[in-house]
Amino acid sequence: MPEPTGRLKGLKPSRRSAKDRRRSKKVGLPPGTLVHIGTEREEKVTVSVLDYDLNSVRESQIKDMEELRQFKESPSVTWINVNGVHDTKLVEIIGQIFEVHPLVLEDIVNTTQRPKADVSREYTFVVFKTLEYNADTGEIIPEQLSLILGANFLLTFQERPGDPFDPIRERIRSAAGLLRKSGADFLAYSIIDASVDHYFIVLESLAERIELLEEKLVADPKRELLAQIHRLKVDMIFLRRSVWPMREVISRLSSGDSAFVKESTRPYLRDVYDHTVHVVDSIETYRDIVSGMLDIYLSSASNRLNEIMKVLTIIATIFIPLTFVSGWYGMNFKDMPELTWKWGYPMVIAIALSITTIMLVFFKRNKWI
Amino acid sequence: MPEPTGRLKGLKPSRRSAKDRRRSKKVGLPPGTLVHIGTEREEKVTVSVLDYDLNSVRESQIKDMEELRQFKESPSVTWINVNGVHDTKLVEIIGQIFEVHPLVLEDIVNTTQRPKADVSREYTFVVFKTLEYNADTGEIIPEQLSLILGANFLLTFQERPGDPFDPIRERIRSAAGLLRKSGADFLAYSIIDASVDHYFIVLESLAERIELLEEKLVADPKRELLAQIHRLKVDMIFLRRSVWPMREVISRLSSGDSAFVKESTRPYLRDVYDHTVHVVDSIETYRDIVSGMLDIYLSSASNRLNEIMKVLTIIATIFIPLTFVSGWYGMNFKDMPELTWKWGYPMVIAIALSITTIMLVFFKRNKWI
Amino acid sequence: MPEPTGRLKGLKPSRRSAKDRRRSKKVGLPPGTLVHIGTEREEKVTVSVLDYDLNSVRESQIKDMEELRQFKESPSVTWINVNGVHDTKLVEIIGQIFEVHPLVLEDIVNTTQRPKADVSREYTFVVFKTLEYNADTGEIIPEQLSLILGANFLLTFQERPGDPFDPIRERIRSAAGLLRKSGADFLAYSIIDASVDHYFIVLESLAERIELLEEKLVADPKRELLAQIHRLKVDMIFLRRSVWPMREVISRLSSGDSAFVKESTRPYLRDVYDHTVHVVDSIETYRDIVSGMLDIYLSSASNRLNEIMKVLTIIATIFIPLTFVSGWYGMNFKDMPELTWKWGYPMVIAIALSITTIMLVFFKRNKWI
Amino acid sequence: MPEPTGRLKGLKPSRRSAKDRRRSKKVGLPPGTLVHIGTEREEKVTVSVLDYDLNSVRESQIKDMEELRQFKESPSVTWINVNGVHDTKLVEIIGQIFEVHPLVLEDIVNTTQRPKADVSREYTFVVFKTLEYNADTGEIIPEQLSLILGANFLLTFQERPGDPFDPIRERIRSAAGLLRKSGADFLAYSIIDASVDHYFIVLESLAERIELLEEKLVADPKRELLAQIHRLKVDMIFLRRSVWPMREVISRLSSGDSAFVKESTRPYLRDVYDHTVHVVDSIETYRDIVSGMLDIYLSSASNRLNEIMKVLTIIATIFIPLTFVSGWYGMNFKDMPELTWKWGYPMVIAIALSITTIMLVFFKRNKWI
Amino acid sequence: MPEPTGRLKGLKPSRRSAKDRRRSKKVGLPPGTLVHIGTEREEKVTVSVLDYDLNSVRESQIKDMEELRQFKESPSVTWINVNGVHDTKLVEIIGQIFEVHPLVLEDIVNTTQRPKADVSREYTFVVFKTLEYNADTGEIIPEQLSLILGANFLLTFQERPGDPFDPIRERIRSAAGLLRKSGADFLAYSIIDASVDHYFIVLESLAERIELLEEKLVADPKRELLAQIHRLKVDMIFLRRSVWPMREVISRLSSGDSAFVKESTRPYLRDVYDHTVHVVDSIETYRDIVSGMLDIYLSSASNRLNEIMKVLTIIATIFIPLTFVSGWYGMNFKDMPELTWKWGYPMVIAIALSITTIMLVFFKRNKWI
Repeated sequence: MPEPTGRLKGLKPSRRSAKDRRRSKKVGLPPGTLVHIGTEREEKVTVSVLDYDLNSVRESQIKDMEELRQFKESPSVTWINVNGVHDTKLVEIIGQIFEVHPLVLEDIVNTTQRPKADVSREYTFVVFKTLEYNADTGEIIPEQLSLILGANFLLTFQERPGDPFDPIRERIRSAAGLLRKSGADFLAYSIIDASVDHYFIVLESLAERIELLEEKLVADPKRELLAQIHRLKVDMIFLRRSVWPMREVISRLSSGDSAFVKESTRPYLRDVYDHTVHVVDSIETYRDIVSGMLDIYLSSASNRLNEIMKVLTIIATIFIPLTFVSGWYGMNFKDMPELTWKWGYPMVIAIALSITTIMLVFFKRNKWI
Repeated sequence: MPEPTGRLKGLKPSRRSAKDRRRSKKVGLPPGTLVHIGTEREEKVTVSVLDYDLNSVRESQIKDMEELRQFKESPSVTWINVNGVHDTKLVEIIGQIFEVHPLVLEDIVNTTQRPKADVSREYTFVVFKTLEYNADTGEIIPEQLSLILGANFLLTFQERPGDPFDPIRERIRSAAGLLRKSGADFLAYSIIDASVDHYFIVLESLAERIELLEEKLVADPKRELLAQIHRLKVDMIFLRRSVWPMREVISRLSSGDSAFVKESTRPYLRDVYDHTVHVVDSIETYRDIVSGMLDIYLSSASNRLNEIMKVLTIIATIFIPLTFVSGWYGMNFKDMPELTWKWGYPMVIAIALSITTIMLVFFKRNKWI
Repeated sequence: MPEPTGRLKGLKPSRRSAKDRRRSKKVGLPPGTLVHIGTEREEKVTVSVLDYDLNSVRESQIKDMEELRQFKESPSVTWINVNGVHDTKLVEIIGQIFEVHPLVLEDIVNTTQRPKADVSREYTFVVFKTLEYNADTGEIIPEQLSLILGANFLLTFQERPGDPFDPIRERIRSAAGLLRKSGADFLAYSIIDASVDHYFIVLESLAERIELLEEKLVADPKRELLAQIHRLKVDMIFLRRSVWPMREVISRLSSGDSAFVKESTRPYLRDVYDHTVHVVDSIETYRDIVSGMLDIYLSSASNRLNEIMKVLTIIATIFIPLTFVSGWYGMNFKDMPELTWKWGYPMVIAIALSITTIMLVFFKRNKWI
Repeated sequence: MPEPTGRLKGLKPSRRSAKDRRRSKKVGLPPGTLVHIGTEREEKVTVSVLDYDLNSVRESQIKDMEELRQFKESPSVTWINVNGVHDTKLVEIIGQIFEVHPLVLEDIVNTTQRPKADVSREYTFVVFKTLEYNADTGEIIPEQLSLILGANFLLTFQERPGDPFDPIRERIRSAAGLLRKSGADFLAYSIIDASVDHYFIVLESLAERIELLEEKLVADPKRELLAQIHRLKVDMIFLRRSVWPMREVISRLSSGDSAFVKESTRPYLRDVYDHTVHVVDSIETYRDIVSGMLDIYLSSASNRLNEIMKVLTIIATIFIPLTFVSGWYGMNFKDMPELTWKWGYPMVIAIALSITTIMLVFFKRNKWI
Repeated sequence: MPEPTGRLKGLKPSRRSAKDRRRSKKVGLPPGTLVHIGTEREEKVTVSVLDYDLNSVRESQIKDMEELRQFKESPSVTWINVNGVHDTKLVEIIGQIFEVHPLVLEDIVNTTQRPKADVSREYTFVVFKTLEYNADTGEIIPEQLSLILGANFLLTFQERPGDPFDPIRERIRSAAGLLRKSGADFLAYSIIDASVDHYFIVLESLAERIELLEEKLVADPKRELLAQIHRLKVDMIFLRRSVWPMREVISRLSSGDSAFVKESTRPYLRDVYDHTVHVVDSIETYRDIVSGMLDIYLSSASNRLNEIMKVLTIIATIFIPLTFVSGWYGMNFKDMPELTWKWGYPMVIAIALSITTIMLVFFKRNKWI
């Protein structure tokens, strides 16, 4: 027996709404007050330093933030990575050492920030989302990444430990590629480039899900597909929302506004810019395809109804007249001459066969059967 | 028994139309005539003054408007807050004291004004909506706020007593933060910032309602949901309509057009600008999600119809042929040989069982049961 | 008995198509040929003059157009109002007196003109629509108004007698407000302002109709509502089409292009500009709300179908099996042992009751009843 | 008996696809190779000359193209009209005489060209569509018109004989209007103006069809209407596609880029520009109205289904229980006490009447009847 | 018997998703690392040279890439065509010889590149898609083409052997047209022009499919059409995605940014630009038409349902009352006076005929039959 409630399985609330929720904690506070907004975390915040020039590489974990002060003016390139922004005190201390504006620090600890690039005389501030695709659960896990790019240092703030930048660290250590020969701006570019590369992984996962859904639509357009199409659309909205402002961000960086981005790094940034355009373009294409799939799904549903009604109509229009005929000669009138005719019963059989034939011809002509 | 009228509960007329209604009162009047447009009010209008500099704070309630004249040129920062704009006489008097253009006064008393910023040589005029979210009723209560920013004074006009600016007053009194050290422009910024913060509360309430609706769609897509989706959409349109022009307003203020907004305040305004962009962005995202929910709802309805028709068709296609068979042998012909056969009745039982079996197999094959 | 034809009452052809119809009369004529396009009229065209300066006001009706020549260079402000443009001869004569370009005259007598502002060295030409809302019939009656603004004169051309400018005339006569102290440009502004004020009346009528429709949707979503929603949409398209180009028109006037619009009048024009933006904004909002109403209406229809089918299915699935059972024991086989059993009849009663109960439980479980 | 196949009459393939088809003939050819693209033609190409100045008019048919050479530098205005571009040899010869770039000639013989204006030092090239409305068949017949405007000559290329420019020729002959007093640019303007005037005829035919369709929707929303709405939409897309690029074309001409368009002609061109804006505007309006009509049509269909189902449900829910009751007492049990009761039959009559009454009351309450 | 599962035949996953898949191979690699992205290939990459000036043509196949070095500075025009980019080593060697930036080489071997033009001092880099239409399978086969245009050389990189440029080679060999007289920029233009010409072939195939679908919609709107409409839409999205960025690419080339594009070649490029605009325009038109076809298809489905339900309702509403009547007189009450009346049976016949007549009249009146 079919389950006729019309309930929808597999549709879960979107993840975005949960994240925006605690923005209201800041209401009423003076500007520049550091309040961590986002998923609550308990882990200890760690700070690691990777200091390098053409000749040497030094790596260390920092406990006392005062140690960072030396890197501010040193000629070697220093990458200071902070894993975790929920310890607002620590972020504030680091911010004071590198003379970062309180509003910028506020943006760093607010993990629901919209991607943007701010260029000031002292540093260039960039904030955006990295996206990690978990192939097992099919989830897209966002993380906010903030960059503060100075003359010879790069501060990065991440929400939690673990990042896709180990290949970059490896390249620095092994002196492969241009990184060791270039400045902090090229390091910043490398990090942005690696993040945008991960957008492609998410994009490809979307493409695979679209393919799978199209196959299922061909095989068996079940109701569950609708929830999956909705999930796909929500994920596409989500990806688009992260990538779209990246265009402006990278365009800003490569425009020459920032004094800390060297001329030689700009072609690389324009290359990343092209990648973001590609991602946005692909999402638009997928959106059109998915909306076409919705049309097909809805049409499948209405087609099914047609088929069901056809079956009902065929059965009913054949048997209802027949039933009437047999009911007719089931009447108990004293004086029904047909009942006593010799050919009465054969006549009724003939009538029944004619009705059936006529109806079948009619259905055939209308291509119902 | 189901209630089959197709009536829709819970859909109330939108609040906007009620507010625009009395705009026509002004038709035919010369420009600069002060006519209060909006909800009619009876309360006495109150005027409070908060005058401060780095060293001292003075608070007072004003009865005689002539007292205000002293604050126009005084070096200390003065915040004059008017609760209520329905007393157009009083607004006119204050306007004359601070030499405000009659067209600006007209805008102040018209509480259906579209948010805008007007920069003139004497002052900068800003008008926009504050939104208060009433968690109990789920209502969004708008209020128009007009700001007149001069060199050392800030005039604010509100529709009614009660505002979300008490934390600002507290910060002035306690000399916490930058307020006491800054000018009237920073006070104006703080008020705008606090108002935009409240947009986030409304935004979060929308997010919660979307989540709740998605959960209900999963559990039981009832007809009432449609009215709730419509309400949600109307509230989103409403929020968007208030926030969208705020972008221009704040962009105008932070652009350097206004002589009364100091260079040091502009980064703060740009920060608020980013917040409004965030709100608008989120509304767009929610809109897409909600329109997806509508698709799911409508598809649920059509799915239900399919299920209902399936049940009807299964019952009808099984029993209609059976009824015909039994009707057939209910005929009263004299000469129906089957009726007197020994195996006549068992034969009919066999026929009935075959029909039932065939039909069930057919339904099974088509995955109807 | 329901009226089942699916016919739609109350939908009348849109008014726009009727008006554009006679545009083809001009095909093949040389440019500058005056051809009246619009509703045909028979009334005598009247020309009235209102000539004023700070000290005096003179009013007169003009018979001989040559009298107008004196006002062209006179220092006092002259408002020449022409009621009716179907007398193209007369328009041509007036045009020659004030040295108006033939193409402009062509635009004046073509009452299907799109709103626009043309700035030339001799005069500024403005053409737009005034809208009058007839509360009795619910009709919006458009009228084309052309303005020719010179140094000290203002020519206005209307389609027919009767206009919403009597308050302006009264203010001139009574020397109230700024009119008597200002030039012809302020008079032009006052006329535009009064016309835009009437857009608000139409807007409010739309808002009221939306409210009413929403109430009806709550109470009883009848088929007639669809025609009303369509009418509402057509009226909104119509209003939008009149107001949208007004933004450009007024923006052009207030920009400083025109030598005849004084600096002091510009803030007033910017004020009117804000009003048109407000109207366009509101129409957009209404459009979104109305499209949401359409969704609700369509869903109501499909909901009704669901309810109807539910009733049919409930009745049919309960009684069809019962009818089969009773038909079964109506068979006339000689050898039906049940018919002669002592408990045969009670058994059938029990079967009938069980079937009914099972079906009712099934419907209850599926929340159909 | 209704024709139940769901077939759609009256929908014919769109005309555009047929015309674009032979564009592929050019693939692989070097640029500047003249290949006629469009409907194949056999007619002899004719070339006529109209040479005029303030004092005289000379008309002739040209056989030997070398005769045209004299008009290239002559001070009188010369209008050379070529009827037919399928004779690419002839076009090439004329092109060589007037030193026209091969790419321009290529555009002239390709009758699927998008409207555009090209300004070069030697001449100004304009290509666009004229539209003729055939009132009998309701067809819109497009024709490509190419203009080459030099200092004192105007070359026009048409696809076939017959054009809407006879009034212009008449005005030249009769020395009426400005044509004889003006240069070749005014002649070009006159031709463009006449063509745009014909857009209005097409526009009005669309308006009439919309009106007619709205009336039919009111009277009887038959399935054929859908095909007509589709045709209307396709025609609107077609008209829009011809008119939209005309805006750029005329805007380019009136901008002052072209040395051959005199200052005095520009106001006339701006006037034509306004006309094209009007046409585009009207199409947008019609599009909105037509999409509203589609909603009404689709809702009519679903309304009809509702009505049909109501009738079925009313009949079925009244008679199915009655049939059961009568079937019940048709059972042949030995022991059915009711059958022998004195009041048995009247009781059943009473039951039947009650069922009917209850059902009728239920339908009444639900407003089904 | 109809196949009632609602399955959809003929819908295959879109081709795009398959191609983007391997973009993730690059994640984590330093910029400038050459990784071939696209369909994996095994063929040997071939390099052919076509070196020509006004007087002579030399053709050769290159084995040792060092031979290419001579062409870099030679005065004759050299076209070096590389068939296959999956041999990244080879691409790197050629890149080093012609001093191409590693990022450009990266773009060349990534065959999922978005069309773009990069202008640098050393060369101009263009990458775009050629489209080949396979008339047998109806497939559109894309191929990425990269151009590096220097002073006297043109490097082209194709994905696989076989291209539509043989007519160009033939023209070079035969010294027909302008190619032999012009520089490398004209060769680049010729290649782009030939590629854009092939877009028209794809466009025409789309037009033919639309026509065919419209014809089928007229004849028999079967469910398979929906899948075909979807395929058509996906192909249109695909074509649009390839052509749209071509506008920017060609616009960039013809703008004068590139030092290697001569003034004389620009009119030709503007001509190609017009062609791409034409293609994009046509796709927009087709999109509108196809979306109208979808409306017709969906309406056909709902129309069929209406027709089916009409048949069912007509049969049921005529026979259900008749069946009741006959059932009534099949009751076995002892005391049913009608059964023994003389006119009982004729009366019932009369009743049956009346019911049938009334119902038929009712259906006639409602235009159901």
